Amino acid sequence: MQFFEDIEIGTLTRLGSHIFTEEEIVAFARAFDPQPFHLDAAAGARTHFGGLIASGWHVVAISARLRAQACAREHETLRREGRPVPRLGPSPGFKNLRWLRPVRPGDTLTFLSEVTAKKPSASRPEWGLVFTRETAAVPSGELALEFTNCVFVERLEG
Amino acid sequence: MQFFEDIEIGTLTRLGSHIFTEEEIVAFARAFDPQPFHLDAAAGARTHFGGLIASGWHVVAISARLRAQACAREHETLRREGRPVPRLGPSPGFKNLRWLRPVRPGDTLTFLSEVTAKKPSASRPEWGLVFTRETAAVPSGELALEFTNCVFVERLEG
Repeated sequence: MQFFEDIEIGTLTRLGSHIFTEEEIVAFARAFDPQPFHLDAAAGARTHFGGLIASGWHVVAISARLRAQACAREHETLRREGRPVPRLGPSPGFKNLRWLRPVRPGDTLTFLSEVTAKKPSASRPEWGLVFTRETAAVPSGELALEFTNCVFVERLEG
Repeated sequence: MQFFEDIEIGTLTRLGSHIFTEEEIVAFARAFDPQPFHLDAAAGARTHFGGLIASGWHVVAISARLRAQACAREHETLRREGRPVPRLGPSPGFKNLRWLRPVRPGDTLTFLSEVTAKKPSASRPEWGLVFTRETAAVPSGELALEFTNCVFVERLEG
């Protein structure tokens, strides 16, 4: 993220791609979402999913990681150019998260982030709120994940 | 979760409590949300957070785990009583997730799930949709996390 004033509506950032392996799907499920269809291919095959699927929270966590890494790269570029680096504030939350199709072992998802709106914070003059539409899609373009993200970003004039 | 027909609006389930240790906060951040204030106490101290705070996705992931474990306990009880066990379907997503206060090392959160609404699925007669209000609170009762969850639950008459 750049400073609030420099962020343009419509900017689309390709956060990166991720391959969901069976090993990783099962490891995440053991740690955070121990349901049969996330833990075991045979148990998944006996459900309407027809096999092992990734926890939706796993897909969201990978989205968070790629977003943090993209932000770190952008800040590193600003530093190299000798420009000031904005502080990133807390995220107040998310809206309307949708899991649109199952993610199975071997699936590659590509994560995008598009700036959809921004507004100065009413209560915190040094911060602005930036809204993004976050998506993850399989190679055909079909979405597996979609949600509206929101984060506080430092203002130049704050 | 019980069968769709047996689920009563207003039912409040105590999913459990969780202590967020510094070690676990950092481990989650390394894996899924590598931002300075989630990774390192000294780096966090230099931000407006004033110290290390847990990734919001970490808090959500613990909520998912406690929910899956509570569901497994409920299904185990049904099995012991010789009663049929409902299938749980996919979650289509959630709404309006809010992180309401930072979670710091040593904080204990208590997670609750309250059934707020249910309706038959329009497109899938064997399933119903159940909506819950999920919360996590510190011992004083102040909320750290709140969101509306939604899950498909098997119908007895499906």
